[in-house]
Amino acid sequence: MNVLIVHAHPEPQSFCSAICTRAHARFRAQGHQVRVSDLYASGFNPVAGPDDFLERQDPDYLVYALEQRHAYEGGTLAPDIRAEVAKLLWCDLLVLNFPLYWCSVPAILKGWLDRVLISGLVYGGKRFYDRGGMAGKQALVTLTLGGPAHLFTPDGVHGPLDEMLRPLLRGTLGYAGFDVMPPWFGWHVPYASPAQREALLEAHQRHLDALAQMQPLRMPRLDAFDERLYPRSPLSA
Amino acid sequence: MNVLIVHAHPEPQSFCSAICTRAHARFRAQGHQVRVSDLYASGFNPVAGPDDFLERQDPDYLVYALEQRHAYEGGTLAPDIRAEVAKLLWCDLLVLNFPLYWCSVPAILKGWLDRVLISGLVYGGKRFYDRGGMAGKQALVTLTLGGPAHLFTPDGVHGPLDEMLRPLLRGTLGYAGFDVMPPWFGWHVPYASPAQREALLEAHQRHLDALAQMQPLRMPRLDAFDERLYPRSPLSA
Repeated sequence: MNVLIVHAHPEPQSFCSAICTRAHARFRAQGHQVRVSDLYASGFNPVAGPDDFLERQDPDYLVYALEQRHAYEGGTLAPDIRAEVAKLLWCDLLVLNFPLYWCSVPAILKGWLDRVLISGLVYGGKRFYDRGGMAGKQALVTLTLGGPAHLFTPDGVHGPLDEMLRPLLRGTLGYAGFDVMPPWFGWHVPYASPAQREALLEAHQRHLDALAQMQPLRMPRLDAFDERLYPRSPLSA
Repeated sequence: MNVLIVHAHPEPQSFCSAICTRAHARFRAQGHQVRVSDLYASGFNPVAGPDDFLERQDPDYLVYALEQRHAYEGGTLAPDIRAEVAKLLWCDLLVLNFPLYWCSVPAILKGWLDRVLISGLVYGGKRFYDRGGMAGKQALVTLTLGGPAHLFTPDGVHGPLDEMLRPLLRGTLGYAGFDVMPPWFGWHVPYASPAQREALLEAHQRHLDALAQMQPLRMPRLDAFDERLYPRSPLSA
């Protein structure tokens, strides 16, 4: 299996960065090929904008998704995007590894999603969810956060973390067609004792080792919807 | 009322940018003071990192939130952050205006949230939700998107858009203490006829005009939780 880890933490010595290193080693030990896009280390530019295209279909008015499609077809995507798209196409498993910032990904990783998951390849028209461009690939979210798990239970103060991650797990990765594997959460990291950190590292490894036995999260299937994407009635199905 | 509009669209001629311009004019007409942070126009840097602090509490190991707190207290935040924090403190109403990218904010706006909503001022310790640092201020999300409304009904293919926006509405704005007003969505924008766009502009204006009569979204209240943030039982309340 080819594994692409997209990692986004500003501190190379952080626990989150250790999780990236451990994942790299573990996937290699399992016999997989691994590549890492370390967004902070490479100084990745996260801002989707006009400079993302070496040539414009419409130089006077930017419709970002249309220019993505045009540039992908014409081979005129900016080189940094092209390099990431090549890795995305190469991988069988995409791992996003990051610290939770505002119940979401850090901006540098959001920009990777904005600029690399391009229209015309990853999605477009009716190509989404089970018909998305990334169908056949897996995606895995592994993240670290400051809060303890009990804040994110159904009756916890924030509610389930999966619900906070809905735009990422479903609205992005599921939409793009990935089989979205159950995410792994490293809770309460800044407050963890050395023994607790070790336990987290072990739990992370067990999660990676169990991946092949896990079922992906449930996502919508487009055959439940008609041509205009209205839900089909159960009787007409 | 002081209104800060944070706007994030790469095309100044876009419908989303027109919404920003219209909001500016409408709030002025209502007698409010208005400032706009146009993130693309100013070339805002969205990447949270070590350069955000003129002086470091710990130069060898970056804990971003701790350095935010330290730099806010010591007046050593990077100038671009300090300027945005001043606008944030000045405003009574924060408006986030953006095109929906992957069911979320564009990276440049995510970076504004990551870098400007600083620990020690906006949140920290038990200062969140109704005790958050932004308590007493209002926040409003106005966004444009490509999809039509029927994709985002409860039985629509994506489910309710509010649920996709949970990390922003609740996990960020609600968490920070804002009264989060009902968001406004400009549906199906790239496919709208001129008449439909005019109708959207009018709907947007009606939304702004009705803001004073609206109730904010429901958010958790910390008095429903104990000192360790476990839910209090109804009997002990």
